[in-house]
Amino acid sequence: MSVTFAQGFSAAGVAAGISAVEGKKDLALVVNNGPLDVAAGVFTSNRFCAAPVQWSRKAVADGHIKAVILNSGGANACTGEAGYRQSEATAQAVAELVGAPAENVAVCSTGLIGELLPLDHVLAGAKAAHAALAADAQAGADASHAIMTTDTKPKTVTLEGSGYRIGGMVKGSGMIAPQLATMLCVITTDAVIDADLAKASLADGTETSFNRIDVDGCMSTNDTVLLLASGASGVKADPAEFKALVAKACASLARQIIGDGEGASHDIRIAVTGATSEEAALACGRAVAASNLLKCAISGNDPNWGRIVSSLGTVPEDVAPYDSSKVTVDVNGVRICENGGAGRDRSEVDMTPREVHIDIDLNAGDAEATVWTDDLTHEYVHINADYES
Amino acid sequence: MSVTFAQGFSAAGVAAGISAVEGKKDLALVVNNGPLDVAAGVFTSNRFCAAPVQWSRKAVADGHIKAVILNSGGANACTGEAGYRQSEATAQAVAELVGAPAENVAVCSTGLIGELLPLDHVLAGAKAAHAALAADAQAGADASHAIMTTDTKPKTVTLEGSGYRIGGMVKGSGMIAPQLATMLCVITTDAVIDADLAKASLADGTETSFNRIDVDGCMSTNDTVLLLASGASGVKADPAEFKALVAKACASLARQIIGDGEGASHDIRIAVTGATSEEAALACGRAVAASNLLKCAISGNDPNWGRIVSSLGTVPEDVAPYDSSKVTVDVNGVRICENGGAGRDRSEVDMTPREVHIDIDLNAGDAEATVWTDDLTHEYVHINADYES
Repeated sequence: MSVTFAQGFSAAGVAAGISAVEGKKDLALVVNNGPLDVAAGVFTSNRFCAAPVQWSRKAVADGHIKAVILNSGGANACTGEAGYRQSEATAQAVAELVGAPAENVAVCSTGLIGELLPLDHVLAGAKAAHAALAADAQAGADASHAIMTTDTKPKTVTLEGSGYRIGGMVKGSGMIAPQLATMLCVITTDAVIDADLAKASLADGTETSFNRIDVDGCMSTNDTVLLLASGASGVKADPAEFKALVAKACASLARQIIGDGEGASHDIRIAVTGATSEEAALACGRAVAASNLLKCAISGNDPNWGRIVSSLGTVPEDVAPYDSSKVTVDVNGVRICENGGAGRDRSEVDMTPREVHIDIDLNAGDAEATVWTDDLTHEYVHINADYES
Repeated sequence: MSVTFAQGFSAAGVAAGISAVEGKKDLALVVNNGPLDVAAGVFTSNRFCAAPVQWSRKAVADGHIKAVILNSGGANACTGEAGYRQSEATAQAVAELVGAPAENVAVCSTGLIGELLPLDHVLAGAKAAHAALAADAQAGADASHAIMTTDTKPKTVTLEGSGYRIGGMVKGSGMIAPQLATMLCVITTDAVIDADLAKASLADGTETSFNRIDVDGCMSTNDTVLLLASGASGVKADPAEFKALVAKACASLARQIIGDGEGASHDIRIAVTGATSEEAALACGRAVAASNLLKCAISGNDPNWGRIVSSLGTVPEDVAPYDSSKVTVDVNGVRICENGGAGRDRSEVDMTPREVHIDIDLNAGDAEATVWTDDLTHEYVHINADYES
């Protein structure tokens, strides 16, 4: 279903010959048929942000987007002025097809950095996608397939609010780190909302989801999250409920990215409690999530708490005040680190489930935060040593 | 030769049954026979610092150390009060053997975190090591072997100053990240120096060597670098020359750690020039060195400059001001990224040498810095997924 679950949206996913993988669907189009064309966007903070990010950031600034075109098979990043003109030309072509100003068309690209796109294929693909537009489940599914790169499966979400719907799709598997991840995400809704609520909902939603996952510590040049509202349900959304649902949609999609992390054999949830502030909890969680040594240990089914506390120990005291002799660590419910030292025997921990829960109590306050990461496997190295060739 | 190259030092390395590897030399003793007993130390900043670090930091604070005992096979980290008493008891035993106060004996441990040492083995080993003490090359070599863990080879250095000598040994292979690394290092000299010069030389020397290498981004609980001066040459060292030689010794040992990084197939030198400050250059170098994606690409012999610039792009502008459209990147002498975009074809880069040179010019100023890292291989994952079991 993905983006077509909400009323007022049509979508398509076609094989445009952009990807090196012959016959792969590599171009998606999502059109907001209104009556509203409200939108909000969140983008990578990478200073080498890609041409489509530069374009789309400007396009969404006024809170209105009519259509989004997304391609896999090339990131159009670090491509300078020529790359920017490609994004612009792509937006113009879509604008003509859907009868809207180019400034109301967002462009997203994902794939290799440093190469221009085969623009003729993109433009021909845009036409083909426009001709294939439909509002049914298959069209939404096609779009979610077309944005995949090293993803092994499409990632979508559907949620029902009070009289309105939210749908979404995301791609992302590697180069995933806060803030955001190498991910393209489109969330649609038929709720009646204004641009301010769209913006606030998306900002809050991404903060506690996409900004709290880390596959490999690598921030992308192309990250884009868009929220589009058609108003087609005719139902004015309650702001609190709407925000909660957008956060839930973001959390679901972020969780699916972790579940499809490159080469991962375990999804790791790191919950830090007892912190003096949410920032402190988050800093501790991120430090643990970034540990290659821990991530390797987990891939070997070793609940190596030494690698957890040595990561905690790198967080400066002014960022996260705690007493190292009071810290406890539970892995999958077994307290293997007590008072900063050895607790129950690590052999008691059942490491067979895909999902691993690391619960860290700093015993210093009441704040908490949760981050997600993946383990580090032979397969991750294989994928990323050979992705180019 | 290692630590016995300088006059006035005797050493030994024995198999004390601390390591799980039967018959492995796992305990080293280095004794300063004087006439001086000047010393300086630099330690991990990890807040979960190990018991031997807590002990040795106090011991060296007055600038005097008579002997150092080092063991592999167990880190004695996160072992609380009981662990601290083990380090203390070990120092007391050595103190009796060498006829010095316990407060003049440093203790270093490396190995698994979270377990107490087999103290009886350590104490028996100390006696055996004391009985085996010698000032010859073999004794120095034995000591450098006894501190190895996942190291595949001993790492030593010998340098000649104007009438005096410097020798050293280090262990370190994984859990290597700034600041410092999982490393134990002892540098000896027979120069006549005072504690202030020892301290200043070691601080400067570690800053540009051990603090600029990063195997896996993981900071250890046990890092210790000690400099011991016997004064046995009778030659008062010129401070400038001495500092330069200590820096050279540190740089040599740090380079050897990178050369023996866990599972590494390439040693990667990242030189950042054209920065507005050394801090800016360093921040950029560290960001690139920390990229798992780049490290995987290098292991696959792919000079993937997209992963280099996307890492540069994560450094905040206030830390390192530069214009992304002016950045150039050379890999092994080929400018594959020009003005922030594609330069010469990456196929021109010869990736067969073990040493890979990444030269980044920010074109924003005159400052520079160099950091070293390793590539990320299947073997690294293998070593660290299975280290425990």
